[in-house]
Amino acid sequence: MPGNTLRDLEQAHSALERFIQEHFSRQKERFHYGDWFEPLYFDLCEYTGRKGKRIRPLMLMLSYRAFQGDRALTDPSLLRCATALELLHTFVLMHDDVIDRSEKRRGLPTFHKLCAGRLAISEDRDRIGENIAMVMGDIVYAMAIQTLHESDFPPAIKDRVMSEFLQYTVDTGSGEILDILLGCQDVARVKQEQIEEMYHLKTTRYTFEAPCLMGALLAGATAEKLEGLKAITTPLGLAFQIQNDLIEYKAMNPLEPQGSCDLLEGKKTLLLKEAFLALDDVERSFLQMCLSSMAKRESALLKIQELVDKSGAVQLLEQRCGQLFAKSESMIDTGIFSAVEAESLHGLLATVRQQVRQVA
Amino acid sequence: MPGNTLRDLEQAHSALERFIQEHFSRQKERFHYGDWFEPLYFDLCEYTGRKGKRIRPLMLMLSYRAFQGDRALTDPSLLRCATALELLHTFVLMHDDVIDRSEKRRGLPTFHKLCAGRLAISEDRDRIGENIAMVMGDIVYAMAIQTLHESDFPPAIKDRVMSEFLQYTVDTGSGEILDILLGCQDVARVKQEQIEEMYHLKTTRYTFEAPCLMGALLAGATAEKLEGLKAITTPLGLAFQIQNDLIEYKAMNPLEPQGSCDLLEGKKTLLLKEAFLALDDVERSFLQMCLSSMAKRESALLKIQELVDKSGAVQLLEQRCGQLFAKSESMIDTGIFSAVEAESLHGLLATVRQQVRQVA
Repeated sequence: MPGNTLRDLEQAHSALERFIQEHFSRQKERFHYGDWFEPLYFDLCEYTGRKGKRIRPLMLMLSYRAFQGDRALTDPSLLRCATALELLHTFVLMHDDVIDRSEKRRGLPTFHKLCAGRLAISEDRDRIGENIAMVMGDIVYAMAIQTLHESDFPPAIKDRVMSEFLQYTVDTGSGEILDILLGCQDVARVKQEQIEEMYHLKTTRYTFEAPCLMGALLAGATAEKLEGLKAITTPLGLAFQIQNDLIEYKAMNPLEPQGSCDLLEGKKTLLLKEAFLALDDVERSFLQMCLSSMAKRESALLKIQELVDKSGAVQLLEQRCGQLFAKSESMIDTGIFSAVEAESLHGLLATVRQQVRQVA
Repeated sequence: MPGNTLRDLEQAHSALERFIQEHFSRQKERFHYGDWFEPLYFDLCEYTGRKGKRIRPLMLMLSYRAFQGDRALTDPSLLRCATALELLHTFVLMHDDVIDRSEKRRGLPTFHKLCAGRLAISEDRDRIGENIAMVMGDIVYAMAIQTLHESDFPPAIKDRVMSEFLQYTVDTGSGEILDILLGCQDVARVKQEQIEEMYHLKTTRYTFEAPCLMGALLAGATAEKLEGLKAITTPLGLAFQIQNDLIEYKAMNPLEPQGSCDLLEGKKTLLLKEAFLALDDVERSFLQMCLSSMAKRESALLKIQELVDKSGAVQLLEQRCGQLFAKSESMIDTGIFSAVEAESLHGLLATVRQQVRQVA
C-alpha cells in the first residue's frame, strides 16, 4: 500500500471513531423521551462503538481522497457522510441478527439479546427483545439518513449522494430477501448466477460501490470515472464475499457449531454450490440429505464438511478470488483515471485485501 | 364541514389514490431485480392499494390548502409528499403486524402472511415470511424517503420538510418501543402519563402533527402558525387514539377474540388503566390476575370485559374525548390564524371526526 494511502487510512480511522462517539453525544438531545429510553440509547452507542472494520465509511473517505476532494479527512461534513454509512451498517446488522436469530455480534451479545436482557419479564422475552431491536433498527436507519441529510456539501451534490444512498439501501434489502429466498431452496435448484446476483446486491453494491461512488461524488468526480469505479468494485465485492465465506467455512467447528453458521442457516453460498457441482451423483444426494436434515448438527455438519473438502471447491474459489482481485486491479489501469487517482485506488484495493486478511 | 373542505377532501382523495397507483407503476423500473422480486412487488402494490382512510396524506393536503399553498391538489409534487406519508404508514403497518403477529390487515392477510403464503416450503414458513416482511418494510421506508426527496418544492422548504419527516419517524419508532415496554408491565405500575406519552409519540405526532406541519411548511406558513397547529393537534391526536381504543373495545367479541386484540396483546390502553383505577382493591386484583393469565382467552376476556364495563371507564373516556375535540376546536380560534385559515382548519377537524365515525 502506498505510504500516503496508509497515512490517510490511519488518519481517517481515528477521526472517524472520534466522530462517531461524539455524534452519539450530540444526537442525544433528539432522544429526549425520558428515562425509559436511556438504556436503549446507551446500548446503541455501545453496539455501534464496538470494534469493527469500518470498511464502508473508510472506503468513502479513501475514495474521496483518491479523487482529490478538497476537504481534510477530519472535515465534519465528510465524517458525517462516512458516519451515515456506518449507521446504515448498524441498522442492517441489527435486522440481520434478528432474521438469523444470532446471539453474538463482534464478540458480544447481538442487539436483540441486549434488549431481551434488560426486560424484567420471563415470558416471551426473546420475542420482545427481537421486536424492540427491529424498531430500534428502523430508528437507526432514520438516524443514518438524518446524518447524511445534515452534511453541508453543496445542495446539488448532496441531493445526488442522497439519491444514491437511498437506492443502495433498497438494493441491499433486495439482496437480503434474495438470500432468504435462496435459503429456502434446494442447492441443486439454486443457480450460481443467482448466488452471484445476491452477492452483488448484498455485498458489492452496499460495501464497495456505494461508499466509493459516494466518496467520488462528494469529490466531484466525472460520470465516466464513476462508471470506471463501478467496474473496479464489481469483481472486488465478489472476491470479498467469497473470501468471507471461505474464512467462515474454515473457522467452522462442526462439533461446536455457532448459531450464525452459514451452513446451519441453509445459506446458499458459492462454496456450497461449487462443492455440489464438483461431486458425483451419489455424493450430491448425500449432501442434499445432510443439508435438509432437521438436526443439521454435528454428524450432518461433519459429513457436509467432509464432502465440501473433498470437492475441491475451496481451492477453486481461492483461485477465483485471486483472479477477481487481479481483475479489479486491472480495471484501475484502463486510462480513465489520472496517475494520482490510479495510485490511490491501488492503495484502496490494498486496504481491502488487508482487511480480508485481518478477518482471517 | 364547510363545502369547500368537503370538495377539497373528495378531490384530494381521488387524486391521491390515482397517484399512488401510478407511483408504483413508475417506480417499478427501480426494482429490476428479476422474476424473483415480481411477486413481492405485486403484493406490495396490492397491500398499499387496499382501501384505507389515507388520513395522513389527506391531512397534509388539507393543511396545505388551509394555508393557501398555491399549487392545485392535483399537483404531482404535492401528491408526492402526501404519498411519502402513506408509504411511511405502509412500512409502519408491515413492521407492526410482524411485532403483533397479526394475521389480518384491512380485512386481508398481513404482509408477512402474504410472504409466507408464497413460500413453497413448510418448515419455518411463518418465521421466514416475517423475515421477508421485515426487510420489505425497510425497503418501503426507503421508498417513502425517495418519494419525498424527489418532490420539486424549493430546496430550503424541501430540506426542512425532510428534517421534520425524519424526526417524526424516529418519534414514531420510540412510541412503538414505549408501547412494547408498557405491554410488559403490570397495569398497576403503568402511569397514565406514560400511556399518554406513548399516544403522543405513536399517534398524535405521527398521524396529525407531522402531516399538518408538513402541509403547512410546504404552503409557507410562519413559525407562529406552525406552533399554533401543534396546539390544535395535541388534543386531537389523543382524542383520536382514545376513540380508536373505545371502538376496538366495543367491537371485541370475547368468545371469538381476534389475534390483534389489544387486551390479548397486553397493551396498556388508557381505557384499561382508567378501569383499573375506578375499581376497588378486590376487583383490581382480579383484573390483574385475568390479564396475567397465560390463557387470556374466553373466560379471562369475558371477566375483563365485565370489570371494564362495570368501572365506568368507557363513559369517562367518551366524555374526555368530547372535551379534547372541543379543546382542539378552541385552539383554532386564538387569533393566530386568519379567518380563512380558521375556517379550513375547522373543516379539517370535522374530517377527522367523520373518519372516526366511519371506523365505528
